[in-house]
Amino acid sequence: MSLNSFGHLFRVTTWGESHGPALGATVDGCPPGIAVDEAMLQHWLDRRKPGQNKYTTQRREPDAVRILSGVFEGKTTGTPVQLMIENTDQRSKDYGDIAEKFRPGHADITYWQKYGIRDYRGGGRSSARETAARVAAGGLARAALAALVPGLSISGYMVAMGPHGIDRSRADAAEIERNPFWCPDAQAAADWAEYLDGLRKSGDSVGAVIEVTVRGAPAGLGAPVYGKLDTDLAAAMMSINAVKGVEIGDGMAAAALTGSENADEITMGPDGPVYNSNHAGGILGGISTGQDIVVRFAVKPTSSILTPRRTITRSGEDTTIVTKGRHDPCVGIRAVPVGEAMAACVLLDHVLLHRGQIGAAGGSIGPAR
Amino acid sequence: MSLNSFGHLFRVTTWGESHGPALGATVDGCPPGIAVDEAMLQHWLDRRKPGQNKYTTQRREPDAVRILSGVFEGKTTGTPVQLMIENTDQRSKDYGDIAEKFRPGHADITYWQKYGIRDYRGGGRSSARETAARVAAGGLARAALAALVPGLSISGYMVAMGPHGIDRSRADAAEIERNPFWCPDAQAAADWAEYLDGLRKSGDSVGAVIEVTVRGAPAGLGAPVYGKLDTDLAAAMMSINAVKGVEIGDGMAAAALTGSENADEITMGPDGPVYNSNHAGGILGGISTGQDIVVRFAVKPTSSILTPRRTITRSGEDTTIVTKGRHDPCVGIRAVPVGEAMAACVLLDHVLLHRGQIGAAGGSIGPAR
Amino acid sequence: MSLNSFGHLFRVTTWGESHGPALGATVDGCPPGIAVDEAMLQHWLDRRKPGQNKYTTQRREPDAVRILSGVFEGKTTGTPVQLMIENTDQRSKDYGDIAEKFRPGHADITYWQKYGIRDYRGGGRSSARETAARVAAGGLARAALAALVPGLSISGYMVAMGPHGIDRSRADAAEIERNPFWCPDAQAAADWAEYLDGLRKSGDSVGAVIEVTVRGAPAGLGAPVYGKLDTDLAAAMMSINAVKGVEIGDGMAAAALTGSENADEITMGPDGPVYNSNHAGGILGGISTGQDIVVRFAVKPTSSILTPRRTITRSGEDTTIVTKGRHDPCVGIRAVPVGEAMAACVLLDHVLLHRGQIGAAGGSIGPAR
Amino acid sequence: MSLNSFGHLFRVTTWGESHGPALGATVDGCPPGIAVDEAMLQHWLDRRKPGQNKYTTQRREPDAVRILSGVFEGKTTGTPVQLMIENTDQRSKDYGDIAEKFRPGHADITYWQKYGIRDYRGGGRSSARETAARVAAGGLARAALAALVPGLSISGYMVAMGPHGIDRSRADAAEIERNPFWCPDAQAAADWAEYLDGLRKSGDSVGAVIEVTVRGAPAGLGAPVYGKLDTDLAAAMMSINAVKGVEIGDGMAAAALTGSENADEITMGPDGPVYNSNHAGGILGGISTGQDIVVRFAVKPTSSILTPRRTITRSGEDTTIVTKGRHDPCVGIRAVPVGEAMAACVLLDHVLLHRGQIGAAGGSIGPAR
Repeated sequence: MSLNSFGHLFRVTTWGESHGPALGATVDGCPPGIAVDEAMLQHWLDRRKPGQNKYTTQRREPDAVRILSGVFEGKTTGTPVQLMIENTDQRSKDYGDIAEKFRPGHADITYWQKYGIRDYRGGGRSSARETAARVAAGGLARAALAALVPGLSISGYMVAMGPHGIDRSRADAAEIERNPFWCPDAQAAADWAEYLDGLRKSGDSVGAVIEVTVRGAPAGLGAPVYGKLDTDLAAAMMSINAVKGVEIGDGMAAAALTGSENADEITMGPDGPVYNSNHAGGILGGISTGQDIVVRFAVKPTSSILTPRRTITRSGEDTTIVTKGRHDPCVGIRAVPVGEAMAACVLLDHVLLHRGQIGAAGGSIGPAR
Repeated sequence: MSLNSFGHLFRVTTWGESHGPALGATVDGCPPGIAVDEAMLQHWLDRRKPGQNKYTTQRREPDAVRILSGVFEGKTTGTPVQLMIENTDQRSKDYGDIAEKFRPGHADITYWQKYGIRDYRGGGRSSARETAARVAAGGLARAALAALVPGLSISGYMVAMGPHGIDRSRADAAEIERNPFWCPDAQAAADWAEYLDGLRKSGDSVGAVIEVTVRGAPAGLGAPVYGKLDTDLAAAMMSINAVKGVEIGDGMAAAALTGSENADEITMGPDGPVYNSNHAGGILGGISTGQDIVVRFAVKPTSSILTPRRTITRSGEDTTIVTKGRHDPCVGIRAVPVGEAMAACVLLDHVLLHRGQIGAAGGSIGPAR
Repeated sequence: MSLNSFGHLFRVTTWGESHGPALGATVDGCPPGIAVDEAMLQHWLDRRKPGQNKYTTQRREPDAVRILSGVFEGKTTGTPVQLMIENTDQRSKDYGDIAEKFRPGHADITYWQKYGIRDYRGGGRSSARETAARVAAGGLARAALAALVPGLSISGYMVAMGPHGIDRSRADAAEIERNPFWCPDAQAAADWAEYLDGLRKSGDSVGAVIEVTVRGAPAGLGAPVYGKLDTDLAAAMMSINAVKGVEIGDGMAAAALTGSENADEITMGPDGPVYNSNHAGGILGGISTGQDIVVRFAVKPTSSILTPRRTITRSGEDTTIVTKGRHDPCVGIRAVPVGEAMAACVLLDHVLLHRGQIGAAGGSIGPAR
Repeated sequence: MSLNSFGHLFRVTTWGESHGPALGATVDGCPPGIAVDEAMLQHWLDRRKPGQNKYTTQRREPDAVRILSGVFEGKTTGTPVQLMIENTDQRSKDYGDIAEKFRPGHADITYWQKYGIRDYRGGGRSSARETAARVAAGGLARAALAALVPGLSISGYMVAMGPHGIDRSRADAAEIERNPFWCPDAQAAADWAEYLDGLRKSGDSVGAVIEVTVRGAPAGLGAPVYGKLDTDLAAAMMSINAVKGVEIGDGMAAAALTGSENADEITMGPDGPVYNSNHAGGILGGISTGQDIVVRFAVKPTSSILTPRRTITRSGEDTTIVTKGRHDPCVGIRAVPVGEAMAACVLLDHVLLHRGQIGAAGGSIGPAR
């Protein structure tokens, strides 16, 4: 069963462990004729790459992606695209201690209990390193979206680090690329830098909230009732390491609203329906409305920390653990490009699904023609 | 494509519209030899049934489920189980207005834009009535779980209505069945009754937060990295009508914690690992730990309200809409048994998957034997 | 897992047993806006219906199909279509003997060994009666194909009964509807009538070879390398009860040819490529060429016969069995409309897949434009 | 969509083109704890490797398989296993002519018509080279079967080359490994050598019939009605390049039998049911009986031949083609290990499915205990 796969028509299977020879993504169902090359994919991987500043793990890997199949003379052929990233900086010796002890809050213990065997080096398959393959696949999805849905854009950014949220009245998209946190609020970014520095020095870590906005998606994407656009986005984001919550539009806060508050009223504009608000996050009944699609997810703090925690060994003895090695004090930072990549894959998937199910357009709104 | 299906090995496909002849669930992959009959399923449907008190829609349907296949002499045979519920109280005349106008916050407009045709009567396929089929399937899943994992229990309850949350220090499981809101906090339930009465009279509606706890699930359930237990739970809950957010364990609040706070420390107990807290909601790396599994979701307020809202017609004219008919002022109430049912289906599915992938148990913890 | 389902985008799940309350097909993925009603489906079911002449089982059922969902005001809505056929003539008492004894050549013993429980009445799920659901789904697929691929036609016919094949030089499509065997060779049909009469009287049965030809399918359908058009056709036909072999084009005989004989040479015609022969059966590399698609399958003789055969009981005792009841002396006759239905479903599925994957057309042949 | 994948729980996705950097198989769902290394897989690849004798293509590739993931310290971990084979001897210049002309009987034209782009070098994705990935995956399946079903064996062999079949009365399993054709009849092998030599010299090619026998499979494998064991075997074999027909047991010949002839009578033996014949090929109702499972398939002659054939160019001009390069005069020879590999994958898949669906055993036959 493709339990390491996601997507309906654009189907991504990731493979590989943190400290094996390589990892990658096998992508089946990419339409033919899409212009793509390794440099285009590398652009997105470089955004996620660790070791770029003091706030992410100091593991240094080129994370160079290779296209092994499915592309001929610069274009996809409609056959599977194999994207491989070799692991080059593996330093296995750093991880000796966790072969025997389970890190609290980490998948160490559950992988052991499930499989009876685990590649403990660097977290093996449960390492955040697996997300590099997602970013590579997301780059391919972006290339296909650019060809199929011109004008669609996907932007991820951090809206809270630990207990410190951004001030949305100060948010400016142009800031996102200007700080190491992909934070749209320059003031918050400055505060976070100081906050995280303190945490890092104290050997602790912290969580974060990431938001991804998709602009320019047409109305009509999404397949009720179990392949809804929001259902697939929720699954995609929840599958990212350390994610504990997912929200669409107002998310959990929608529960506190009344029906009259929550209704995104509609008026008719020159180009179709205009919504006067976007509590729904661009999705009604699992189908896109044409508004901005807004998805948000919470990343818990890195569980590999220098602060000693009580735990047990594989042979059942009580002990404590201090996780050395190179770990991100806020793994949520690197989750930003991952969230974007997942959104890109899900959107492309639903563009293809819609085309298969519906062919051309669905119903139009306006005077009968 | 089974876009109206969920589950890997225990695969549920729901079908049917609010005002068609019938609706139901086609369940493929139920293990053979499970004792089940219509009365056992009816028990769960009766919990969800509308018209039971003044807080839910006054539509009165017996919602009687029939088993059309897959059960022989009181036991499942391993072949597909067809569960059908006939629609008897359809009063289509109530819905005349919404044939032409789109309700704000409702799937009316997106179904039209996607498909170019929609059964507008009572919301058609996007009606909350679809969830009756889920509850029937969930009843079957519960029967199978009772046979395969004795001791596992699933309990749903409401933890917030609109802005009013429960006080967890007052929570008492015994209260859940004693009020119409499945609320574990008797005081909150009393307050909600008054609050909802006011809303109902004013023609408005409100959202809610539901929590489902699974007790007694073994460690090892869940299939990383895209068939994780939390990923599947998130998708299952997000697929329910009107759900806008899903959380596992601490959920969105996990982002505000430090790594040392978030670590559920482990000590060795007489029967295996003991966790000193449960921020993780019973799932690490997508695999169950053996602790309580805790999933929470937010239901937005019903969009069919008596308060007038601005909208447009199918021919593109601005107008206002007042939705008469029989609607729930807090559709979240009826979402409680639906959330339980979805949890039951996902859990059973992962029990079967684990058995297929792993056979017997995975790794043990304790002195080498 | 949808092990009772087939199809990628047009996904058919059949459910139901021979002697349960009903059986049917849950069809997910039918495009919206397709004109269909019960009478259109009934047309195809009536062709398959037993009891029409002395060569098929005398079980008399109206086999009336009901559409329970997915169709509104005479058109599909893009939501699941539930097709139900109630079982009315069940005479369970006829089947008492086979509750304890396993019929040689029948699924009785393997269902028991697999599931440890079986609905023995009339073969339960393994009854040829399950194919009624396929024919209903095939009717829906034909309606969609008529809208999406005008000019496509599907014709099934019998080319051999037992050892007696047709003479292809005498074949005439107009004959197919004129005899109870869907035989294109009038002389063969007359011979078969006499032959089958003798077999029936002696309490024996016989096999058959069925061929299905699809005309008017465009080039480009089929998804290499494991969703090939021929792969899916082979699986579809092999899944029909009692089928033991499937051939595309020359089939098994292709093995005896040389490469120069087998090459279907190509010349350029006014409307595109013209093939001078069709050894390939209209499929190269798993993709349709635009020629006639030809698939053939062998149906073994009915295993329920009046001739005594040695067998064992469930408790392991040697015995003999004589299967009374109403059985087809040549179950292959009723397999003709079933083969057509399966071909219709597979073709529609690949039309939708192609549309989803490729969008409009693929590569053109001819002078650069 | 995983259209380049097969299998339910043991899911194999092959990727790669004949003349790209590499090809391989992404295998998801392999149980953990299976002992496997590259040498074990290489053993099976070496059997398929071209250039071993004058009867197969003279392309010389080491076809060295690398395990990139999913194996740790010599055992599978339950995570995806990536098997990669680099392409080293690509000689693209040999294939210049087929960039513009379509080979009759080859997928050249249909890939072009479908995708509008194709990697024409060596057939690209439609090359028989893709089957190397299947053989690697089949090696992994064999390793898992050895652990899970001790005593199960899989043997493929050729039973006809062109019009020349073996004499089954002379068949001897020990001969299979002694001649380049995997032929169990030494006399036939000698005749074929001479026959094929003549064909090769004349620049022609020929088809073949391959049979695969699985011994030692337990009763109860197979999932009716669309995941039947024979359905999955038929799809698996039909998906192999150049296969035009698939048979189970008596196959197409079953059509010529009467019910009394076809019934495999059953008596009770000391260890369970004993069948007095095996017309069914070990499968009844899609479920294994415990007898030998027998599947047979026809491979058409190689379409790349030196004999000139009429065809057209991409720009629509009539022409003739002579395919130079290194091609197998009887591609069926190399299909033998491929058929074995596909059988291994399908069998393992159904072993895992059965375990997931049924748990332990199904029904027993014998005196009540």
